[in-house]
Amino acid sequence: MTSAVRRGAVPLLALIALCLSPIAAVAGEASLVLPDLNGAEFLGGVGGKTLLYSGLVVSAAGLFFGLMMYSQLKNMPVHKSMLDVSELIYETCKTYLFTQGKFLLLLWLFIGSIIAVYFGSLAEFGKDAAGKPLHGFPADRVAIILAFSVIGILGSYGVAWFGIRVNTFANSRTAFAALTGKAYPCYAIPLKAGISIGMLLISVELLLMLIILMFIPGELAGPCFIGFAIGESLGAAALRVAGGIFTKIADIGADLMKIVFKIKEDDARNPGVIADCTGDNAGDSVGPSADGFETYGVTGVALITFILLAVPPQTVQVQLLVWIFMMRVMMVIASGVSYFINEAMAKAKYQDKTDFNYEAPLTVLVWLTSIVSVVATYAVSYLLIPAVFKDESVWWKLSTIITCGTLAGAIIPELVKVFTSTESKHVREVVVSSQQGGASLNILSGLVAGNFSAYWLGLVLVFLMGVSYFISLMLPTGMVIPMAAPVFAFGLVAFGFLGMGPVTIAVDSYGPVTDNAQSVYELSTIEEIPNIKEDIQRDYGFAPNFHVAKDNLEKNDGAGNTFKATAKPVLIGTAVVGAATMIFSIVMSLTNGLTTDLNKLSILHPPFLLGLITGGAIIYWFTGASMQAVTTGAYRAVEFIKANIRLDDTVKKASTEDSKKVVEICTKYAQAGMFNIFLTVFFATLGFAFVESWFFIGYLISIAIFGLYQAIFMANAGGAWDNAKKIVETEMKAKGTPLHDACVVGDTVGDPFKDTSSVALNPIIKFTTLFGLLAVELAVELRKKESNADLALGLTVAFLVISMFFVHRSFYGMRIGGRVEQEKK
Amino acid sequence: MTSAVRRGAVPLLALIALCLSPIAAVAGEASLVLPDLNGAEFLGGVGGKTLLYSGLVVSAAGLFFGLMMYSQLKNMPVHKSMLDVSELIYETCKTYLFTQGKFLLLLWLFIGSIIAVYFGSLAEFGKDAAGKPLHGFPADRVAIILAFSVIGILGSYGVAWFGIRVNTFANSRTAFAALTGKAYPCYAIPLKAGISIGMLLISVELLLMLIILMFIPGELAGPCFIGFAIGESLGAAALRVAGGIFTKIADIGADLMKIVFKIKEDDARNPGVIADCTGDNAGDSVGPSADGFETYGVTGVALITFILLAVPPQTVQVQLLVWIFMMRVMMVIASGVSYFINEAMAKAKYQDKTDFNYEAPLTVLVWLTSIVSVVATYAVSYLLIPAVFKDESVWWKLSTIITCGTLAGAIIPELVKVFTSTESKHVREVVVSSQQGGASLNILSGLVAGNFSAYWLGLVLVFLMGVSYFISLMLPTGMVIPMAAPVFAFGLVAFGFLGMGPVTIAVDSYGPVTDNAQSVYELSTIEEIPNIKEDIQRDYGFAPNFHVAKDNLEKNDGAGNTFKATAKPVLIGTAVVGAATMIFSIVMSLTNGLTTDLNKLSILHPPFLLGLITGGAIIYWFTGASMQAVTTGAYRAVEFIKANIRLDDTVKKASTEDSKKVVEICTKYAQAGMFNIFLTVFFATLGFAFVESWFFIGYLISIAIFGLYQAIFMANAGGAWDNAKKIVETEMKAKGTPLHDACVVGDTVGDPFKDTSSVALNPIIKFTTLFGLLAVELAVELRKKESNADLALGLTVAFLVISMFFVHRSFYGMRIGGRVEQEKK
Repeated sequence: MTSAVRRGAVPLLALIALCLSPIAAVAGEASLVLPDLNGAEFLGGVGGKTLLYSGLVVSAAGLFFGLMMYSQLKNMPVHKSMLDVSELIYETCKTYLFTQGKFLLLLWLFIGSIIAVYFGSLAEFGKDAAGKPLHGFPADRVAIILAFSVIGILGSYGVAWFGIRVNTFANSRTAFAALTGKAYPCYAIPLKAGISIGMLLISVELLLMLIILMFIPGELAGPCFIGFAIGESLGAAALRVAGGIFTKIADIGADLMKIVFKIKEDDARNPGVIADCTGDNAGDSVGPSADGFETYGVTGVALITFILLAVPPQTVQVQLLVWIFMMRVMMVIASGVSYFINEAMAKAKYQDKTDFNYEAPLTVLVWLTSIVSVVATYAVSYLLIPAVFKDESVWWKLSTIITCGTLAGAIIPELVKVFTSTESKHVREVVVSSQQGGASLNILSGLVAGNFSAYWLGLVLVFLMGVSYFISLMLPTGMVIPMAAPVFAFGLVAFGFLGMGPVTIAVDSYGPVTDNAQSVYELSTIEEIPNIKEDIQRDYGFAPNFHVAKDNLEKNDGAGNTFKATAKPVLIGTAVVGAATMIFSIVMSLTNGLTTDLNKLSILHPPFLLGLITGGAIIYWFTGASMQAVTTGAYRAVEFIKANIRLDDTVKKASTEDSKKVVEICTKYAQAGMFNIFLTVFFATLGFAFVESWFFIGYLISIAIFGLYQAIFMANAGGAWDNAKKIVETEMKAKGTPLHDACVVGDTVGDPFKDTSSVALNPIIKFTTLFGLLAVELAVELRKKESNADLALGLTVAFLVISMFFVHRSFYGMRIGGRVEQEKK
Repeated sequence: MTSAVRRGAVPLLALIALCLSPIAAVAGEASLVLPDLNGAEFLGGVGGKTLLYSGLVVSAAGLFFGLMMYSQLKNMPVHKSMLDVSELIYETCKTYLFTQGKFLLLLWLFIGSIIAVYFGSLAEFGKDAAGKPLHGFPADRVAIILAFSVIGILGSYGVAWFGIRVNTFANSRTAFAALTGKAYPCYAIPLKAGISIGMLLISVELLLMLIILMFIPGELAGPCFIGFAIGESLGAAALRVAGGIFTKIADIGADLMKIVFKIKEDDARNPGVIADCTGDNAGDSVGPSADGFETYGVTGVALITFILLAVPPQTVQVQLLVWIFMMRVMMVIASGVSYFINEAMAKAKYQDKTDFNYEAPLTVLVWLTSIVSVVATYAVSYLLIPAVFKDESVWWKLSTIITCGTLAGAIIPELVKVFTSTESKHVREVVVSSQQGGASLNILSGLVAGNFSAYWLGLVLVFLMGVSYFISLMLPTGMVIPMAAPVFAFGLVAFGFLGMGPVTIAVDSYGPVTDNAQSVYELSTIEEIPNIKEDIQRDYGFAPNFHVAKDNLEKNDGAGNTFKATAKPVLIGTAVVGAATMIFSIVMSLTNGLTTDLNKLSILHPPFLLGLITGGAIIYWFTGASMQAVTTGAYRAVEFIKANIRLDDTVKKASTEDSKKVVEICTKYAQAGMFNIFLTVFFATLGFAFVESWFFIGYLISIAIFGLYQAIFMANAGGAWDNAKKIVETEMKAKGTPLHDACVVGDTVGDPFKDTSSVALNPIIKFTTLFGLLAVELAVELRKKESNADLALGLTVAFLVISMFFVHRSFYGMRIGGRVEQEKK
């Protein structure tokens, strides 16, 4: 391994070491109270645990694969002028990530304290002599659970860091490779970076979960999974929200200058451009990596918890657990294999072209992976799932249910293109309406695209869930406890959504690299370096073609936009499907395993109905609060840039100082926005959980459903505006016209739509649901003692008031302010 | 009575005659199968029916009051130049209403056929000798039910017509009275018009409902109430949607000219202005009148149905029915009295002022009425509700529940001002953000205002519903069937929302009159008439003050905007609270009176959960479809106006021909948009009802909750943008600046937000729920025969496919179209 790999691997190894430490602590007493994983034997008499060991091997291989790619990217040729820019971006990103790291630590104190209180004093742990349950885990056990919550955060954080490092290698290498005049490397390099992130991310996730499953004693494994998942989703939520705010402040700041000063996109004289590049990584790379990591983990934890709670026959339980993990292992392999096949095909076809449609091989990759995954799903299930209660058909039923999810993962991106691709009638409508109606009709047409997409995507999801429900009715009686089979099905659909995880992440990560590559090219001002043509010919052995390079980088950016847009609803879709399974765990514990109080889950129980209504309030508030942070930040950024930009001919680049100042503005408002948002969510979750358990269940369902539509709507409206602008710029070549100005307005409104509010809803919903699991248990345990009634009531009111205080602050504390009259002149 | 009143009253009398005809048909055999309304005796031994007769008298008095006001308005002095304009507006409105009338007839065919099929062949009617239920009402009974559905439509249509006539009297009288230089008449005339509409509307409603209750035989009264309510909400939905689209096409068309040609708001040379004035009436007068009529009726029908279904003791049933009606009677009186008191106070205070804050007396009126209503609620309840099962406290418990609603009707407007008034920090933020960020940040800030308002208003509603729920738990056992008390409470809250119905309608109708008055002033070009000062002095006895007049009319328009904005969420709020009660009727029939299948109403029943998810799809689609119609229409209008406007100095006014052409464009797209929307809603309701009954229940709850938030969000975002523009125009006097342009963009985006999509959601939700009642019964009855299974499945698929076809058309059939490339030059 090269030194590059060694250096890049440091955070990663630290992460793994940290994750192993609690295991060492309990390894001495490790005795599986989880079902005996060797209990059920599979084909050829192989025990479950042996199979899982093979999973460890595959994860390790996946990790190695990711690091290999990393090393390859690092060693690709690149001109110093471009390398400098990408290293500057990486340094800025590092600063950003350090700040975020400290901030995550602070947020962890909040959830850590709740975890400690709950497990340390309230949760059941063992029984006394009389068989009465005892409460409170021993301190060392609590410490282990807390450690896993930290590991969860570090996981989200670590893969995000890895992603940013890989991307900032890839961006300059892509920009440089474009100079060859060949189109193929413009496509291959970003995709290599993407698959490297995707494989590493999924492998780390799988490794960590296998470790919990295989090496943590059973009575701790459950809480550790929960702690781990809460940590992951806290990390993802924070990184998504903060990154989303940061990137869009910078993006709007840079974009609006196009209208004001009629300068081009990445003009080096604009001090906002470095912040914009950093933002592309903070928002479009850090966010999705952490989000993907979280989603993959949380849907897994939801399914594991389900199997432990709702599958009574011990042998079936083991079989399903092993099956679930082997499916994930298989999917890592399927993604890797598909990537290589697709690369071979793409290379053969496009290697020597100076131009091709970049979206084509990406689309092939997605479909190829989904077909390979589906075939492998059936094959592995056939091998691993034997007859259950003499029913030989369970394997194909479960496979079909998962396939509903895998298909969703392939169909949804296609459907998203109907509303956001440059060929879409909706996007064309946005352009046309702007021709007579300017920014006004541009905005309205984009909103229409988002609204229609919410309708169609929502119905597709309902349809696929409906199919899985019908198949679940055919599962053998007794395999799953009554009423739980559909929940299992929904969990498997969510699982299937992420079936091609590495590839989903890879195509999502394609965008920030291509976006950055274009910026790196401009910021390097390489064309103006004296003797550059000769230098490149001498040092790298080819004659640079600037014109073709710029053209290819721009087109590639469009492809990146499209695939970034298509990946979003996939992650979002898991939120609602997966939430159903997670909420089920809470319901199980509230109803003593679905035996009591079932009528409270009905709309005839008014608190439940009121909970359903309340969820909408939080989703709308969240949308507003995240946009407010972007608006105020963008205002300050624009104000600063307008005052400091120098456009006289003597200046070629903005000063580093000014660039840093813009980064500071972005960071400041990202932090402030995130802080209010996190505390609101944290205290609202506690408060609503304390109001009444069934009210809270209604609330959780409501945020999942409201979040789903709001997120789809915003993501696709944003995508439509973005590509409408792209049409005006590339197809109509109408930059600088009033039509272009109108489309820039739409694009900037769409910025926080698609990259701040919409994408953050998934981790926010997951975090609320997971953390809610603890919060509601806390309330229930507290209320068990009559003497605590007043305390519980007091806490309810206090939590709600605090959450409302932060809602209030998320606007009134984040205002631009200033008096209207003053600025009249 | 003057001839004016006689002529104006024609449509009204026709309506009443028509409503009486079916009654005549059944009067012969009228025997109350409804509980014997004399069964319970009230204070002083008065029977229920006698009390209700007093209700008839009060309704008649209310009607007379409305007509008196009408006559007074008609006879006020007005200059011919202004009268001509207002009569032109009225004529255009008439054409619009005729077109709508024909269209309503067409829509009625759809629901009429379902009513006929259901009652004519499926609904239970009597029993055979063996006691088995027979199906199918006799033809004459079906005809009566159908007649009541027509009466419902005519009711919505008739009050809308009356409203438009009153408004088009008031607009020119207000404009003329402004010339006196006094501020008071600018306020008093629009309010007089408003209260006239409000009193007439509520009185007609009450009269019709009393007639059904008192004179229709019992087994028909229920179906007649349902038919009547469906008709009302069909009428209201159609008039709201079509009116909303019409008005905003015209409004955007007229507004955008301000940016393009830098002309003022109501420039007479702009051929879009007449359409805009017509639109103000079609959208802001016709819509709310019909909506108010519908809401008032439907919440009443929901409560009556509830009492008949869920209050077993016959005496209590009668007591509650009589009480409900007497509460309404009392509220008509309370509104009338409050109006007169407030007028006396306002006159004393402002009569001679040249300037005052128009919002002040309107606010006083709202609060005064709510206080009077609350006091009267307790008083009447104390008198009419005796001990129930020895519980003496029922009267104050029910009063308190209603008061939750009445308070909502007063608190919600205040809260709306926090987000939309010109003093609001949110609105100021919209202005400030536009200063650096132009249209982009203007749009984002407005969206933020809408989002935050959804949070706070949503929580207020949940809180008030929560309070009413707690009180409902204290009602005596046996008074209402188990589990139903909270539903009763929610119904009463919805009822209380509209407690001050006439005043709510009055302040809502204030806006279109003041808006029109300003336009009438400009269009009359009165200042340029030779010798106008002398003429007015001679003919009307005062010297006109043009400058003060214009100023007062403009400020008054602002007050109109604010109160229009505050009334919206009140109507919207009733949708979700009222829906709970209406859905309960369906649940009652599906569960055989809450005895079977209750577990199907739980989220553990997946179809119910899937229904909850599906509702969101329809709400987002509806938002998109209604905006698409506005966008395309506005595009065509702008295109036409841009091509035909003549701004050389020789032209003072646009030609009538051109003005008519713009009206035609508006009408065309309003019709086309409405047609797609109605057929989608119609077939989606049938389709989803046929999928599964519990799925449908989930769906209904979902559209109510989604609709609530979406409507609040859109109404208030729109309000914020509107008043941000107002600040720039009046306070900053910055018309024509880039800041103003940015605010016009926000305002035009807000137009369909607040006046098309948002306001139409209430009647759409109500219509779906009421019509769903039939649809779901139809499906259940059809599936009772095993042999119908295939037919039912076929119908389900057919209905869903047709609804999706119209969803598809609502975009692809409504596109602006045109190729992007063509228009490059």
